[in-house]
Amino acid sequence: MIYLDNSATTKPYPEVIDTYRIASEQFFANPSSIHQLGGRSEDLLNKSREQAAALLHVKPHEVIFTSGGTEGNNFAIKGTALGFPERGKHLITTKVEHPASLRAFEQLEKLGFEVTYLNVDRYGRVSVDDVKNALRDETLLVSIIHVNNELGTIQPIKEIGKLLKNRPKTLFHVDHVQGFTKVPLNFHEDGIDLCTISGHKIHGPKGTGILYKREGIMLSPLLAGGGQEFGFRSGTENLPAIAAVVKAMRLSTERGRNGGSSQMRMLTYHIRETLESHPRIIFNTPKEDAAPHILNMTVKGIRSEVLIHALDTQGIYVSTKSACSSKAQ
Amino acid sequence: MIYLDNSATTKPYPEVIDTYRIASEQFFANPSSIHQLGGRSEDLLNKSREQAAALLHVKPHEVIFTSGGTEGNNFAIKGTALGFPERGKHLITTKVEHPASLRAFEQLEKLGFEVTYLNVDRYGRVSVDDVKNALRDETLLVSIIHVNNELGTIQPIKEIGKLLKNRPKTLFHVDHVQGFTKVPLNFHEDGIDLCTISGHKIHGPKGTGILYKREGIMLSPLLAGGGQEFGFRSGTENLPAIAAVVKAMRLSTERGRNGGSSQMRMLTYHIRETLESHPRIIFNTPKEDAAPHILNMTVKGIRSEVLIHALDTQGIYVSTKSACSSKAQ
Repeated sequence: MIYLDNSATTKPYPEVIDTYRIASEQFFANPSSIHQLGGRSEDLLNKSREQAAALLHVKPHEVIFTSGGTEGNNFAIKGTALGFPERGKHLITTKVEHPASLRAFEQLEKLGFEVTYLNVDRYGRVSVDDVKNALRDETLLVSIIHVNNELGTIQPIKEIGKLLKNRPKTLFHVDHVQGFTKVPLNFHEDGIDLCTISGHKIHGPKGTGILYKREGIMLSPLLAGGGQEFGFRSGTENLPAIAAVVKAMRLSTERGRNGGSSQMRMLTYHIRETLESHPRIIFNTPKEDAAPHILNMTVKGIRSEVLIHALDTQGIYVSTKSACSSKAQ
Repeated sequence: MIYLDNSATTKPYPEVIDTYRIASEQFFANPSSIHQLGGRSEDLLNKSREQAAALLHVKPHEVIFTSGGTEGNNFAIKGTALGFPERGKHLITTKVEHPASLRAFEQLEKLGFEVTYLNVDRYGRVSVDDVKNALRDETLLVSIIHVNNELGTIQPIKEIGKLLKNRPKTLFHVDHVQGFTKVPLNFHEDGIDLCTISGHKIHGPKGTGILYKREGIMLSPLLAGGGQEFGFRSGTENLPAIAAVVKAMRLSTERGRNGGSSQMRMLTYHIRETLESHPRIIFNTPKEDAAPHILNMTVKGIRSEVLIHALDTQGIYVSTKSACSSKAQ
């Protein structure tokens, strides 16, 4: 089996499944319960948060565990918009965000917010000048995807972060779902206020994620309730999955550092080099400023479903587009 | 170990953990991917949904898989309020809902909605007449907890459902988190439009739940995005946890039917009978119309933390109040 659909989802590491199983059996108590078993769960939760924070180079209370990338994007975008009713109603994003961002912005438009959707070039890249020109006094949020999920294009996050650094009232959210462990970001240095990460894209469990939320930022909770996650994300903590996703973060970070990213870049380069001269193949992923793990191509004169099924018979699995929209026409 | 904190959370059944592990290993592909592996995941997702629907006596497309009870309550309440902007801005609930409902209502008040919080009697029970008197032409939603999470009191859901049956513009949401598999409800017959269930209260995995959403009701999604779960709850499906929670639903439903509920009732009756004559003990759970698995008592003259820690040393684990508020004063 040659599974090439890792941007849709990954197979969890065996160690991740083991951690999940052990935590489910031995740390099943509610971390909020004040008896001894609850205390043990709370200790594991705190330890997991500290490890996640260390891997992200942030503070433990800047780590909010979520149910995944869709929740992270919805929370960052709607939580900011509804969290600062006095600051303004203008938001900036691009036309090529993941649906988990675009649909959230559309919901806000129905509530009276104004959203600027910036154009991008043929590789899906936004210009820093366009962001600059769209900014207004009442701009609450700029939200940009880091690595385009279909093309692999890397956005100029550092430059946009720099632009926003002296605008404390405009928050900067980055959808880092495809970039994490493959294309490094430094949240503090790069001026990022909010950053969405998903667990199942890095060989972690499904239904897991982190929203990095810079110290001091008050968002309106998407999931309000019992006050878990410092009051920002309620619900009994999914401790087995939290321990397991932190394990995946550590393993994928180490793998990325120890040659994993360069190996992926070598493989995509090899495919490109081999197929580039084929008259029916066009590569849509840019050669420069692209993530190492995504390669998007057009094969002229063949319907993508036909190609997918032909590759299926060879045990090769690829995607035609973002998984969540692959059944739409 | 005598673990008596099952209303805070339960230990997953071994079969549930096995199902999770097997699905993580063998059905890791994204159900939205159109290749063969994706198709296999989609089949398991559909089968799981059909089984869940059969256990709940509803239709498969009335089952929305969520990340748990907090998401279910937030989605039902905010999704209704924001989903029908033309219908009105009045909502009805009680003063004794779970924080996952109360905090959601408070957020809606900030957005201009008017919420009636009904009083309850000393056992936490709401009167059907009070619900009736609070209803207005523009009432969008009545949201009531089925089994009180701290007292075990059962609310008159059937009667309220009957009251609302001829009011198609007022939706009825029931927080069934503590009642499911212990105190039966018939969603269709009882006039329930929306019903929240949590997986980790019935020996299922944490981070799982279902929102039953009656056919045809259009809610505004809490998690907007790729359009999973019929467009009502986006995010890559947490398939291993979905398969595992459906397993827990089946096992707990069977256990409830095969004497599990009457055994729990016998045990709580035994504790009550044994301790009732003690001069320092008062039972707060009503004798009638209470769930079989919750028993709330006051022990006069002793701080609850002291009691908890004394029981801890005997390997007995109990709660002082709802886990999520147990660390608050």
